[in-house]
Amino acid sequence: MDYNRFPKGVPWVRYHGNYKDLNISIVCPGKDAALGVDCVGTVSASILTFASIQALTPDLIINAGTAGGFKAKGACIGDVFIASDLAFHDRRIPIPVFDLYGVGNRRACPTPNILNKLNLKVGKLSTGDSLDMSPHDESAIIANDATVKDMEGAAIAYVADLLKVPAIFIKAVTDIVDGDKPTAEEFLQNLAAVAAALDVAVTDVVDYINGKSLSEL
Amino acid sequence: MDYNRFPKGVPWVRYHGNYKDLNISIVCPGKDAALGVDCVGTVSASILTFASIQALTPDLIINAGTAGGFKAKGACIGDVFIASDLAFHDRRIPIPVFDLYGVGNRRACPTPNILNKLNLKVGKLSTGDSLDMSPHDESAIIANDATVKDMEGAAIAYVADLLKVPAIFIKAVTDIVDGDKPTAEEFLQNLAAVAAALDVAVTDVVDYINGKSLSEL
Repeated sequence: MDYNRFPKGVPWVRYHGNYKDLNISIVCPGKDAALGVDCVGTVSASILTFASIQALTPDLIINAGTAGGFKAKGACIGDVFIASDLAFHDRRIPIPVFDLYGVGNRRACPTPNILNKLNLKVGKLSTGDSLDMSPHDESAIIANDATVKDMEGAAIAYVADLLKVPAIFIKAVTDIVDGDKPTAEEFLQNLAAVAAALDVAVTDVVDYINGKSLSEL
Repeated sequence: MDYNRFPKGVPWVRYHGNYKDLNISIVCPGKDAALGVDCVGTVSASILTFASIQALTPDLIINAGTAGGFKAKGACIGDVFIASDLAFHDRRIPIPVFDLYGVGNRRACPTPNILNKLNLKVGKLSTGDSLDMSPHDESAIIANDATVKDMEGAAIAYVADLLKVPAIFIKAVTDIVDGDKPTAEEFLQNLAAVAAALDVAVTDVVDYINGKSLSEL
């Protein structure tokens, strides 16, 4: 571990090393110093992404994490999705053009060959800072045509796009948002098993990326 | 203007110079390159705050901006508030302790003498990424005991606290959230006049700060 490249005081964690022909840094937002819980959400993800790009100048960002899935759009617990498009569902600004800024649509780096070779699903990802889903969120998620819902993706996509770093998003489904179980309970119940599935998928993606250029993904 | 200290590609604007005994940088998120609208909201504010602290190592941050006010809590159009406390109202995470992380309560740098000397109101500020207010937002704003509502404050407070930089928040009321006019319309109607009031108040605060230490504010 090497914290030297991040400012003093942040709880962020960085693991790094060489794997095959790749130089990989894994950065995590870490745990809130006062509360001890993981620093989830868009604010923490934004500044970590910004600082990591500045410190590490990556060729590619992979945002790997868990997500809620919509069974109406074909998502099941344990599915691993690659996001084709990302948007926010909790930034409602009803002034012309500002409304589009709020939604903040971004396209992920295209990965047609990864999708063909590996057994991953593809879908649109919608991001918001709440684990639950209010009626307003639900309308916006439907408008975003999202299959999966997370709490960081679109913010990371915004920062990556701002600094012109390609990014791909791998999201494993821990809970069914349009199902009958409470999200928080289902999330905690499935987290360990789904994290293991995510681990396998990310390793497969990294193995596929090794030795290739972006245009071959 | 000097953009050299910010990374390439960001729309952020920095004005800087000496005023009395102070070295002041004014940083603004600027306009979205694709859409041309101001980069409002917590994601943009977070990374700009982070980058500005890293580049400029300020002794004090002043976040000046507009806000919605609640007449039930004594706010009127054109009032200028200093925020005593800040919290988020759109980060609902119904898991113990994560719920507190989501709300993200922070205290602003105390400024009892500024409040005594200048004719400013004091109140709690609640932050969210939407200009409108959903019923879920409203409940959370009431729980936050907020008098004013903005789209950046609590995110700036989070980043400033993380990097241990004192911050104060000056918010001028452009619209009454619990009134009968549509927020977007009222906001646009009052923006110019209220920005002028904010300008006067921020100048008064800066004049008061000049020559003093933090503990004298």
